[in-house]
Formats: sequence, structure tokens, C-alpha cells
Amino acid sequence: MSKKILVLAGDGIGPEIVTEAVKVLDVINDKYNLGFELTEDAIGGAAVDKYGVPLADSTLATAREVDAVLLGSVGGPKWDNIERSIRPEKGLLKIRSELGLFANLRPAILYPQLADASSLKAEFVAGLDILIVRELTGGIYFGEPRGIRMLESGERQGYNTLPYRESEIERIVRVGFEMAQLRNKKLCSVDKANVMEASQLWREVVNDIAKDYPDVELSHMYVDNAAMQLVRLPKQFDVIVTENMFGDILSDQASMLTGSIGMLPSASLDENGKGMYEPSHGSAPDIAGKNIANPLATILSAAMMLRYTFKHTESANLIEKAVGLTLDKNLRTADIMSLGCDKVSTSEMGNAVVAEL
Amino acid sequence: MSKKILVLAGDGIGPEIVTEAVKVLDVINDKYNLGFELTEDAIGGAAVDKYGVPLADSTLATAREVDAVLLGSVGGPKWDNIERSIRPEKGLLKIRSELGLFANLRPAILYPQLADASSLKAEFVAGLDILIVRELTGGIYFGEPRGIRMLESGERQGYNTLPYRESEIERIVRVGFEMAQLRNKKLCSVDKANVMEASQLWREVVNDIAKDYPDVELSHMYVDNAAMQLVRLPKQFDVIVTENMFGDILSDQASMLTGSIGMLPSASLDENGKGMYEPSHGSAPDIAGKNIANPLATILSAAMMLRYTFKHTESANLIEKAVGLTLDKNLRTADIMSLGCDKVSTSEMGNAVVAEL
Ligand SMILES: CC(C)[C@H](C(=O)O)[C@@H](O)C(=O)O
Ligand SMILES: CC(C)[C@H](C(=O)O)[C@@H](O)C(=O)O
Repeated sequence: MSKKILVLAGDGIGPEIVTEAVKVLDVINDKYNLGFELTEDAIGGAAVDKYGVPLADSTLATAREVDAVLLGSVGGPKWDNIERSIRPEKGLLKIRSELGLFANLRPAILYPQLADASSLKAEFVAGLDILIVRELTGGIYFGEPRGIRMLESGERQGYNTLPYRESEIERIVRVGFEMAQLRNKKLCSVDKANVMEASQLWREVVNDIAKDYPDVELSHMYVDNAAMQLVRLPKQFDVIVTENMFGDILSDQASMLTGSIGMLPSASLDENGKGMYEPSHGSAPDIAGKNIANPLATILSAAMMLRYTFKHTESANLIEKAVGLTLDKNLRTADIMSLGCDKVSTSEMGNAVVAEL
Repeated sequence: MSKKILVLAGDGIGPEIVTEAVKVLDVINDKYNLGFELTEDAIGGAAVDKYGVPLADSTLATAREVDAVLLGSVGGPKWDNIERSIRPEKGLLKIRSELGLFANLRPAILYPQLADASSLKAEFVAGLDILIVRELTGGIYFGEPRGIRMLESGERQGYNTLPYRESEIERIVRVGFEMAQLRNKKLCSVDKANVMEASQLWREVVNDIAKDYPDVELSHMYVDNAAMQLVRLPKQFDVIVTENMFGDILSDQASMLTGSIGMLPSASLDENGKGMYEPSHGSAPDIAGKNIANPLATILSAAMMLRYTFKHTESANLIEKAVGLTLDKNLRTADIMSLGCDKVSTSEMGNAVVAEL
């Protein structure tokens, strides 16, 4: 089996953190003789600079061929004022859509070593372990018609469309149920069925599909209530499944409950387990190039790649364990630094994880 | 000047909490000789039971005539399985839209007496005082086309439309700026301009209008980041202005930061200061009829009515002060109860506030 990986470091801190994750993949490759073949290319602002567009056709062609993509992060002030159609984020949206990466898995896990980092009281977040399953290729992100038009009244109107087909809902909801089966068997589907027809259909499909997963306890929650409950009692959740925009909002909210988004990986999967793996955090242009960013979210994203695309649980576990051991040794990058710990650079953190492998 | 008030108690705990707010309005009426005329009618499930629809034409006609509406809350399990077109929430959406109540003001204030109630650490929420200005009559809540249709492929698709016209954006954004001028002069406009055209136009209009408010410090934030920042550092915000759906989510999230949503009022205003006033919390069917619900959010909503519709700042201040004094006396309903305080019923709490007036 071929094991081709495309590395898209992207912008801001992307190159630095990806470098550390690649170190880890190299060690795993040698250790287990996995035969990884890594290729590098540009995405986002870096691709605008290199190719004139945030995702070149040639890059997309390579992405289609490989088994997995490791992504850093995209965007930054340098490209804030360029033409809308070639903004860095468009590269990200395009690769998600073109590769059919509909299932976005975003864990929000509180590492016991970092318990103090949360703005929430310890008793509300100790042991927090939520998985958000976000639909990533549908809804208002890609819905047509969309645009800004001139009305007859002479004023402009911006408009977007939020569409969901039954099959689109079904496939992501099944991922939600399957993930719940592997965890604590609780699935909360989030929608706004009291207002939106797209959500009404969503809820109907969820209830239909639930029959195939009698072992999973299903609940429904309106999105406004979910945003409240994530603050009130976050540990009530196991797996949350939701549509693209709600997932964008709730997964960011949930990740911040941990206080250390520099620790949180993500996976975006297609129907066959092919995936793109990236940290949940952004490109942090303010600290780019300083060798101080936290590479652990990207390293943990590499672990997710091993787990979900290469089905190599052993090495995925090993990486996750190595990250835990590194934290146990009180090594901290600036973003997770606390009293009595040792502050390390991006590369020192990467090396420390490698040393544990 | 006529001072007509329509009281729509609604469902669940609505009648109990509204009774206490009406007590307060009666006292204020006598004290300042304001000439209030109160009428009562039904909305939501109560209206379904009485009229067969969640907002009767006759009720709407009365609502058009009066100066202000005091609302309890709508919805409950009794009406969960009725036909979608007459669900309780539809009454709420209809009255907002028909009366043109486009400006929804939702304060999230932490009362010092209730500082412990938050799930956030004290240092993150002590003194919290955010005002969310939510657009209430546009966007995906009311956008057409919408529905569930059969595609040629034989599967169904649910779809909604999110439209915003320049004039709709302008009027709500002006409210945001004006509120900021009365407060700490910081306005954060929340959108998703990196994905949605409706948000791009939103941001453009905000930047245009900002020129009229040079004394207000304006920032823009993507909605996912706003959900994160509300967890990370909520006190960075003064006034947030945003579209309908984002406002629904973020205002609920923000209100829960205080830990006591039983304390939070809201106002929904039209262009002329006419308004509907209601607590930010829901109908809490599980505790309805038990005389244990917290009436303070509704009482504080009556204070907002005096402030925004009747421009009677003195009595609004008086009510707010009375609520503070009542808390100082350690009187607490069950939802805000804590060790060493005295647990009181809904009516006892209302009476205690009246006693302070
Ligand atoms: C950059 C942006 C388009 C993107 C999104 O909204 O999906 C980001 O916020 C994310 O969550 O990955
Ligand atoms: C009941 C529901 C339709 C309503 C809304 O979404 O606006 C509620 O959540 C609110 O915020 O007032």
C-alpha cells in the first residue's frame, strides 16, 4: 500500500509547526517501516505568492493522488487586502470541497497537565473530552445562489443559501454515531429546527438513522442552547454532530474551553478515510518566524493521520503518549507556559516529543 | 401621551414571572402617575390553545396599537408535536417581524452578589457587562426562498436563504454605535465575511457608517473567533453588534457566562422606540406552576421598557436599584441560590423588590 503524504505548510507559523510534525512522522516511518513518501507544496497566502492563487491546480492534482494531507495554517495580514476571490481561506475551502472532505473531527480535550489554562473553573472542565463532528463541504459555505446584488430599490443586498440534501446529512450523521460508538455512546445533534427548514430535514434524517445505532443515546439541541450548555456544563457532552457553520462556531468555542488551543488537532475525512490533518488553531502571524509557536496540535494532527487514514493505531497511540510524557516533564511553549515549568521553543518541543518516541 | 402596555404572559413560567413584573409596573405607575393602561392576551402555546394559532390577528392588532409589550416566554412539551406552522415560536417570530422590532438588546451583566454562579473563574467575569445588539427581523430567520423540496435525484433538500439589505444593516449597526456611545465606546461587529457575501456587505456598511461615530472604537471579528473570545476573555467586549442567527448564538453564550440567566432582561425595539420586553431565558416548563422561577429578568425587562419606550430613566434606575438591594438582602430564588442565602419563591421575590421601591 502506498503511503503518500502531501505537506502544505501554509502561512504564518505553519512552516515552523509543520516542520516538527514532519520530524515526528519521519521517526514513526523509520520505526515501523511504513514507507511514507512526503511531498511539499504551497497553500493559502504562500500559494498566492508562488502561483497567484491560494490553491494551484497542480497542487490540487497532487492532493488528489496522495493518501493524506498535512496542513499547517493559512492566512495573514499580508494578504488581507488582496482581491476577494484569491484570499488565502479560499484555498482551504477549495481543497476541502474538491477532495470531498465532508467529515471534520475536532476534539476538545483538556490535558490534565494544563488544567489551569482554562478560563473555566477546574470542576467544570477537569477531564473534558468532547468530539465535535462538523459537516465540512455543505451548507452556507458552498450553497448557491450567493452574492451581492442590486435591488430594484437601488440598494444592495448580500445573500447566501444554506442547503442540505438527505444524503449529505446522512453521511455526516453516521460518522457522528460511529464516533459515539467508539467513545461514551452519547451523540448530541445540534440544529436550529425551530427556525430553519434545512435543520428540520437534518433532525428528521438524524432520527431515521438513529434506528441503526440503538446503543447510542441520542439528543437534539438548538444551537443557541448548545452554545449555552458548552459554557454551563461542558462535560455533559460526548460527541456533537452538526452542520458546517454551527460546527465552525461551536468547535471554536469548545476548543477554547480547554484554554490551550495550541494543543488541539483536527481531521477532515472523505468517504474512504483519506484525510487532511491540521491544527485547530490559526496562523498566528504575530508570532510567526520566532520559533515560539506550539507544534503539539500539529504533531497530534499527525497522530490522527496515522489513526484515521493509515489505520496504524499503535503509532498514533505512541505519539499521543509521547506528547503526554513531554508535558509531564514540564516542558511548555509560551502559549501554555505556567509557573514552575520550563519554557521551550517550537523546535525544542518537537525534539522533546521525538525523544520520547 | 398614552402609555398602553400589552402583557403577553405566554407559556411555562411566563404567567408567574410576568405577574411579578406587573406588580412592579403597578407600583411605578402609582408612584409617578404614569397613566399606564395594561391589557392582557395570549401568545405561543397559550394562544394555540385559545385561538388555534400562536399569535391571533386580534392580538397582533392590539400589539400594533400599544406602546410596549411585556412578554413572558413561549413554548413547552405540550405543543412539541403540533403542526409546524402553528408552533409556539412562530408567534414570537411573527410579532417581531410584524412590529418591525429589528433591534434586540441583550445585556450580559454579572451581578456582584452572584459572582460565584458563573462556571468561569472570578477574575474572568468579575464586573462583566456586555451588551449584545442583535438584528432581529432579517437574515436566515425570515429569508426567502426556503423550504424542503424534492430534487430530481429523488432525494429531499432543505434550504434557507440569508439575505441582508444595506438599509437593514445600517439601522441595526447605528443602534450598535449609539449604544456604544452611551457606554464604553467600543463596538465589535461580528460576521463571517471570509465565507459569506451577506457578511461582506455587512462589513462594508459597518465601515461606512463608522465615519459618523469617530468617538467609538470599532473592531471586526469572525463569529467563530467571537465564540472563542467570549470564553477566553469576555471582558474585552463592550457592545457587540451582529446579525440575527449569530446574535441568537452569541447572546445565549454570553448570558451563560454570568451563570445566572434568570437575571437577564432583553428589549426588542422598532425604529420609533416602541418595544417588546422579555426575559432572556426560556419558558422552563419543568418548573412551571411551582412558584419557584426567578422573576428578576422579567422585572428588569420592565425597567428596560421604562428606559427605552417611556424614556423614564428615573423609574428604570429605581427598579434596577431595588433588584440590587433585594440581592444584597441575600434573597435568592432556587436558580441563583447559594450557601448562606435565603431561598424565596417567585412571588416572595417580586414582593421583596416591590418593598424596595
Ligand atoms: C478560515 C475559515 C474559512 C475556516 C472556516 O470557517 O471553516 C476556519 O475558521 C476553520 O474553522 O477551519
Ligand atoms: C425561540 C426562538 C425562535 C428564538 C430565536 O431563535 O430567536 C429564541 O431562541 C430567542 O433567542 O429569542
